[in-house]
Amino acid sequence: MGETVPPGKKETVFVHMVSFRYNGCMKTGRQSRMGKALLYEEIAAKISAMIENSTYRPGERIPSIRELSRRLRVSINTVLQSYAQLENLGLVETRPQSGYYVCAPYPEPETRSIKSARENLVASEVMVGDRSFKVISNLADPALVPLGKGAPNPELLPVDKLNRMLATETRRFRTQGISYAPAQGIKKLRLQIAKRSLNAGCSLSAEDIVVTSGCVEAVTLALQAVCHPGDTVAIATPVYYTFLNSIQWMGLKVLEIPSIPGEGMNIEVLRYAVGQTPVHACIVMANFNNPLGCLMPEEKKKKLVNLLAQYDIPLIEDDVFGDLAFGPVRPSSTKAYDEKGLVLYCSSFSKTLAPGYRVGWIVPGRFQQKVEHLKVLFNLATATPNQFAIAEFLANGGYDRHLRTVRRIHAGKVAAVRDAIGRHFPPGTQVSRPAGGCILWVEMPETVDAFRLYEEALHRGIGITPGTIFTTGDRFRNCIRINASYWSERVDQSLETLGELAERML
Amino acid sequence: MGETVPPGKKETVFVHMVSFRYNGCMKTGRQSRMGKALLYEEIAAKISAMIENSTYRPGERIPSIRELSRRLRVSINTVLQSYAQLENLGLVETRPQSGYYVCAPYPEPETRSIKSARENLVASEVMVGDRSFKVISNLADPALVPLGKGAPNPELLPVDKLNRMLATETRRFRTQGISYAPAQGIKKLRLQIAKRSLNAGCSLSAEDIVVTSGCVEAVTLALQAVCHPGDTVAIATPVYYTFLNSIQWMGLKVLEIPSIPGEGMNIEVLRYAVGQTPVHACIVMANFNNPLGCLMPEEKKKKLVNLLAQYDIPLIEDDVFGDLAFGPVRPSSTKAYDEKGLVLYCSSFSKTLAPGYRVGWIVPGRFQQKVEHLKVLFNLATATPNQFAIAEFLANGGYDRHLRTVRRIHAGKVAAVRDAIGRHFPPGTQVSRPAGGCILWVEMPETVDAFRLYEEALHRGIGITPGTIFTTGDRFRNCIRINASYWSERVDQSLETLGELAERML
Repeated sequence: MGETVPPGKKETVFVHMVSFRYNGCMKTGRQSRMGKALLYEEIAAKISAMIENSTYRPGERIPSIRELSRRLRVSINTVLQSYAQLENLGLVETRPQSGYYVCAPYPEPETRSIKSARENLVASEVMVGDRSFKVISNLADPALVPLGKGAPNPELLPVDKLNRMLATETRRFRTQGISYAPAQGIKKLRLQIAKRSLNAGCSLSAEDIVVTSGCVEAVTLALQAVCHPGDTVAIATPVYYTFLNSIQWMGLKVLEIPSIPGEGMNIEVLRYAVGQTPVHACIVMANFNNPLGCLMPEEKKKKLVNLLAQYDIPLIEDDVFGDLAFGPVRPSSTKAYDEKGLVLYCSSFSKTLAPGYRVGWIVPGRFQQKVEHLKVLFNLATATPNQFAIAEFLANGGYDRHLRTVRRIHAGKVAAVRDAIGRHFPPGTQVSRPAGGCILWVEMPETVDAFRLYEEALHRGIGITPGTIFTTGDRFRNCIRINASYWSERVDQSLETLGELAERML
Repeated sequence: MGETVPPGKKETVFVHMVSFRYNGCMKTGRQSRMGKALLYEEIAAKISAMIENSTYRPGERIPSIRELSRRLRVSINTVLQSYAQLENLGLVETRPQSGYYVCAPYPEPETRSIKSARENLVASEVMVGDRSFKVISNLADPALVPLGKGAPNPELLPVDKLNRMLATETRRFRTQGISYAPAQGIKKLRLQIAKRSLNAGCSLSAEDIVVTSGCVEAVTLALQAVCHPGDTVAIATPVYYTFLNSIQWMGLKVLEIPSIPGEGMNIEVLRYAVGQTPVHACIVMANFNNPLGCLMPEEKKKKLVNLLAQYDIPLIEDDVFGDLAFGPVRPSSTKAYDEKGLVLYCSSFSKTLAPGYRVGWIVPGRFQQKVEHLKVLFNLATATPNQFAIAEFLANGGYDRHLRTVRRIHAGKVAAVRDAIGRHFPPGTQVSRPAGGCILWVEMPETVDAFRLYEEALHRGIGITPGTIFTTGDRFRNCIRINASYWSERVDQSLETLGELAERML
């Protein structure tokens, strides 16, 4: 399939098109173009062959860099280069503090149904009706195998430590803890959040931050602050359904922008769109997007911010999965590139610490005063003891150590679920390969009706999210979203059941 | 002054018009009309005389019923009758479990500036601008003497017990406590709230209730559920400023309905208004209204519900002070008279348990599904540990005992602040006489500029709320709102300072 890559097409795109079951993938890459294989390329070719002949199976660990360097008597640097090549080709993946693992051999969904099609770029009123709410409410049933949930498995959260801190902090702050917090949030928490902003490429102060009751509230406040009824919001499709519901409730229109596999929003299409039609806000999940799991490359983030700045369009970023990067480096926020105060950065601790505590925040840039006013009208302030507990955890709870642990666990679970989908689902199934978070997007052959699959799965006690609730249009009918963080033996059986149900629809 | 009461005017109105310093008040009442005094009336006349000649001073306790019965050798029933007459005349007031006290001799404000004036009944767009937000934000300064705050003194809250319950409940519910609660709220809490609904004349089930992050969120959800931009909301003036701000933010219009002293919204004016102009929702604080402190008589509540039902207009009730009745009986909710599911009842535990926990609820009637959807879009759910702690307090924390204590304390503080205002403020000052809650409304002589008073007080470290932020019009320029729950020696000095400042504006 390497041969079909059009000249000039960037390698990152090519990597995501690597063919199903690796057919001939080693004929591609720099090797073929340069005519003569380098030492590191020869090593990469050998390992690739062993993966192809199943000596190393998906999910298995390949030798460590040190070990291979000793075995082959080559420098560590050479092995590093070969592993980097294998990684670029999508054959292996790193897991922090653990090593290199063979990838489940399923390419990113090409999301065929949303390929560009500029003529379809029309802002439309959202009419999701009650179906979406019905699905969300059905999926909340605790009796279900929770593959349809959006939140990570609570077993990965530091429950006892946090609850202990909640108890000690309420004792410590006594009357202050039981009283209203300032609408902006308690200073101690804002300070901790500001300190951590460096990791996302920002340099915020406590004054730049407004604490919210979770990230959904942050995004809702942001939309309320920048939009009026009738306005148009641009957003990459598939769209996280809660955004669609919010947009509908506020009487806004949505402009669904296609996604580039592995990258998220197609910025060139957005550029075309904002030139054609008025756009009043843009929502982006640049890091480990829900539901595709994409990570927008840094240069694209910059392009996005600059493009919107040119038109004075506010950018609302939801970065709720940003701290769950599998790699050693946390990706930047688009806020890092914001020079005009147009980015409203939203996040929370719901994916890493405690969804039930309902503590998130927004960095509203030039809309700060408006957001603070709206926060008062929403609910005066976020709950006080919860803010104290999270602040204490950030200051003295070992949040970074906790993050390193859960990132490794999430990476392992994501790999395991990808592998299981490959084993159980019908041939032709594609599954996203996120570099962070716990959300997988599965594109099945076109005859599979994902909504029927969701309904049949529900009857068998399995929750999955059907793709159709991620759009206002008639798209993603053969797609589902899977939460990988609940991986276990029971989940493997459920995935087998799902695969069988899907198979019958071929 | 009794002679000026027009024939046929109800006694309750008369009581509120009782003249400053009681001039001749004992010439009125049943005694004069019946020609011959009964025994209990003679006793009442004696005590009245002792109040007039300052033997018993405002705030002092008069003899207990048992004591007086022994001293005068009359039956307990006779004394009870005389005390009831004194109470009806506004000369004494009961404080639960404590006895009868001489009232501070200041009548209800007549709120002259808002007397009917039907020609002024025009729905108007709200343009409160930033002044109201500035005032609210200034008053949050913890360095101020907190007479401008809306929330009761946190020293009256069961801090330690609640915080202990927060700690034990999070340990008990471990993972459940850290996870998302259902959007509707945890069952355990809803069940406790439902059980207590009987006290407010309702018979709710847990299914009728949606937990919110405080009462302001409940009212905001209610407004969002029943109104569209451009709609008109009727509400009694003076209006709690947060409602005005919400109405402005949602692009609604407000129709300010005058209040009857001591009763709240003038329902006859409302009746006239809804016949003239489309009204899409009505907000009411029937019990201990903020800022007037009025208690709407039960028959008026019923009238209000029936009137609105006739036009299919939703009624949003904010009952956040309802549990703080000074009398032995908690007043009903308007929900008690709701036969069409048109009442959206809103309340919280912020005035009685823990404002910082942010736990409130709404009973949305026929709008329940919409409210639940909106709750998801606002912030998915209310914080979980906070719900568990409040539920446990309601079930096993002695909430009723706690209420009895704080009601008595509030009644005492309200009486003390009324008395202090009488001593320190310029002659002609009127102050409300609430039968619950902790909010006083003070109407000063017309030349006193309350906003200037607020500003000058701020410079002296005293927070008060100027009347002008309680209306969209040019009203209440000589009024302020005072929170009595912070009463102490320091507060008496501050009230003296306020009185002096006001005196200079005469």
